[in-house]
Amino acid sequence: MNHHNRLPHLLVIGGGFAGLWATRVLAGAPLRITLLDRSNHHLFQPLLYQVATAGLSAPDIAAPLRHILRRQRNVEVRLGEATSIDPARRQVVLADGTALDFDYLLLASGATHAYFGNDHWAGHAPGLKSLDDALHLRRRLLLAFERAEACTDPGERAAWLSFAIVGGGPTGVELAGTLAEIARHTLKDEFRHIDPASARVRLVEAGPRVLASFPEELSHRARRQLEKLGVEVSTGVPVTAIDGAGYRLGDVFVPARTVVWAAGVAASPLARSLGVPLDRAGRVPVEPDLSVPGQPHVFVAGDLAAVKQANGAAVPGVAPAAKQMGRHVAVAIRARLQGANARPFRYRDFGNLATIGRMAAVVDLHGFKLSGLLAWWFWLAAHVFFLIGFRNRLVVLLNWAWAYWSYQRAARIILGKGGDGERPPAKPE
Amino acid sequence: MNHHNRLPHLLVIGGGFAGLWATRVLAGAPLRITLLDRSNHHLFQPLLYQVATAGLSAPDIAAPLRHILRRQRNVEVRLGEATSIDPARRQVVLADGTALDFDYLLLASGATHAYFGNDHWAGHAPGLKSLDDALHLRRRLLLAFERAEACTDPGERAAWLSFAIVGGGPTGVELAGTLAEIARHTLKDEFRHIDPASARVRLVEAGPRVLASFPEELSHRARRQLEKLGVEVSTGVPVTAIDGAGYRLGDVFVPARTVVWAAGVAASPLARSLGVPLDRAGRVPVEPDLSVPGQPHVFVAGDLAAVKQANGAAVPGVAPAAKQMGRHVAVAIRARLQGANARPFRYRDFGNLATIGRMAAVVDLHGFKLSGLLAWWFWLAAHVFFLIGFRNRLVVLLNWAWAYWSYQRAARIILGKGGDGERPPAKPE
Repeated sequence: MNHHNRLPHLLVIGGGFAGLWATRVLAGAPLRITLLDRSNHHLFQPLLYQVATAGLSAPDIAAPLRHILRRQRNVEVRLGEATSIDPARRQVVLADGTALDFDYLLLASGATHAYFGNDHWAGHAPGLKSLDDALHLRRRLLLAFERAEACTDPGERAAWLSFAIVGGGPTGVELAGTLAEIARHTLKDEFRHIDPASARVRLVEAGPRVLASFPEELSHRARRQLEKLGVEVSTGVPVTAIDGAGYRLGDVFVPARTVVWAAGVAASPLARSLGVPLDRAGRVPVEPDLSVPGQPHVFVAGDLAAVKQANGAAVPGVAPAAKQMGRHVAVAIRARLQGANARPFRYRDFGNLATIGRMAAVVDLHGFKLSGLLAWWFWLAAHVFFLIGFRNRLVVLLNWAWAYWSYQRAARIILGKGGDGERPPAKPE
Repeated sequence: MNHHNRLPHLLVIGGGFAGLWATRVLAGAPLRITLLDRSNHHLFQPLLYQVATAGLSAPDIAAPLRHILRRQRNVEVRLGEATSIDPARRQVVLADGTALDFDYLLLASGATHAYFGNDHWAGHAPGLKSLDDALHLRRRLLLAFERAEACTDPGERAAWLSFAIVGGGPTGVELAGTLAEIARHTLKDEFRHIDPASARVRLVEAGPRVLASFPEELSHRARRQLEKLGVEVSTGVPVTAIDGAGYRLGDVFVPARTVVWAAGVAASPLARSLGVPLDRAGRVPVEPDLSVPGQPHVFVAGDLAAVKQANGAAVPGVAPAAKQMGRHVAVAIRARLQGANARPFRYRDFGNLATIGRMAAVVDLHGFKLSGLLAWWFWLAAHVFFLIGFRNRLVVLLNWAWAYWSYQRAARIILGKGGDGERPPAKPE
């Protein structure tokens, strides 16, 4: 790449929707681009809950960044973790001590779980952001039924069969609906001492309704669909404590050995080193062109950017918004290279959809509302369409067709830490 | 299951080919059966190397034992690890302290890696027996190329691009051939600082030839096919040391950051608590009906059993032999229940096959020998046919068709311990 060395260097941190889309739109641009990510793959995050609930394998929803970008000669993919940014020196420092200089920076490192000052809950209520999280959650969910089966104490057994999903947003709704389906259908006939269908799956939302970003009517329909699937929905009462034995809902302690955290995300802590004011969730309030105030060569896109729409509402933290921001940053940088200024970013809202479980979903397309089976087909088509890569789409479709007809889930394999979860495997490291 | 409590109890340890086949053949028999396994799944071990080399996902070659056996009402599946056997008291103790009584015992817990007195090599040269092993190996293999790319020191870079597979049996040959294909084809165009095709993949066999269980002519053909794929084959010189920097081949030190152990297996240590003499590999020399000498109610099957064929040769540690032994034990126990004695076990040898890599394999069907493309098709058909479960077969075929045409591998996703392999992910536990 020596002949490229005099070209300006764009460093992209994060290979999610924002970072990857920006990089791809800059194919052929007179830039050297480095795409830095902590993992070697782009993740189709909207289907992550399917990996956690054993419907899909991890590789079904991920593709190696190097492979996606192999033909884009102005890009170098680098595996590594950024730990701090020095905007004045235009330098990013990695966990291994390396410093990378940049002329332009796109910070798109996304969001992580937030326990809102209750970090000690983390060990008892894992969240879902990465493939490793999903595999961890899968193991916890599947092992809970194994523990219940092996238990002889009725109270202990009931606690193993008590599940709570904290947070009634799209991820919480998807997890609760799918877990209820697993308990009622997938595991049918497989146990001899417990009835998996007796498992209690509770979705706990502190606010007044689930799927708060949807119109009220769809929230109510979603709740009814969840209840039909066997989920107990609790709204309006916050979780006030979580430990290994259960959780406290308002003042009432509920025994539960499995609590999942889907209640909150916070922006990647890397944003702090930019030295600009952040919003309450740790996101960066950006200029209309998505650059950082006072740092025109630094852009922020995706879940890490706090952006307002024309109507004053915040741009939501969803995949289509991240892609649009990524594309916008690419266009803005091309403009800068030609000495021009970028137009302000405008979010195009194509609608909002969330799946609930088997044949149940809600769709809101600018006031055109769908729910139930039709919404579920719409959701399915949209997600399969947007999954990156020909092969993944086919495998995902095949898995889903199979799951649909058989109620089975292809990936019900407990991995890691020894199958029985008690002892680590005798694995050399 | 209360009405069953007076039936004799068969405890099967291990849900591999031997244990699972015995259990299935005993459907409907007047027995209570408990199938105990450390993991929740039956594993199609012959394709484990495909998971390690990112061609298949872990769930593609595994199926939950509970699901396979859900309709067999005389079976209870139990997740747990047996730690000792007391044949006199007819009791097995588990890692969690539980004791299980039995009337009949089938010990089919298989084999594990053996470093032949060099256990300190384990950390530097991982082996391949479980899905966790395969995912660990996958991470090591993929990360080696990432490390080489990030390296600036030429010697260090060469060491990251130097791979050794120790052991020229079927597993070693499969791993070496596939790894060479990955380096030469799969990773093409993806790196900017290294040429993955320059990676050195060496297969090291201490004996005089690879695939020693095959006729000499096929060993030679296999060696030529390996060399054509880009593997350096070394025979007749043993590995005398392994550490994090490389390995010693006879007296010569070879730098290599990635060494894989495919050289030896030893029987599960559980066999020791039977209190009978074991052979050198730790296997149990059994009676002709596969029962333990002096313990007619205890049977051993699969890799753990040392059995002679009519011609004096040992029954090999392959899947078809394990299935046949499992079936035989089931028939023997049925005979015992009726007061009869079982016939001696006779191994039916259907032939021997091993794959080498893309379009290369060797097949020996009682003197009818095949190699190359035709052998590869034969191998492919046989393995897809024997893979348990309709869904897995389809997905595996699809993955292979895709891999064949595109040279791509579907599961090139680095999981666990943080993508960059340096730090653990910020994962609540």
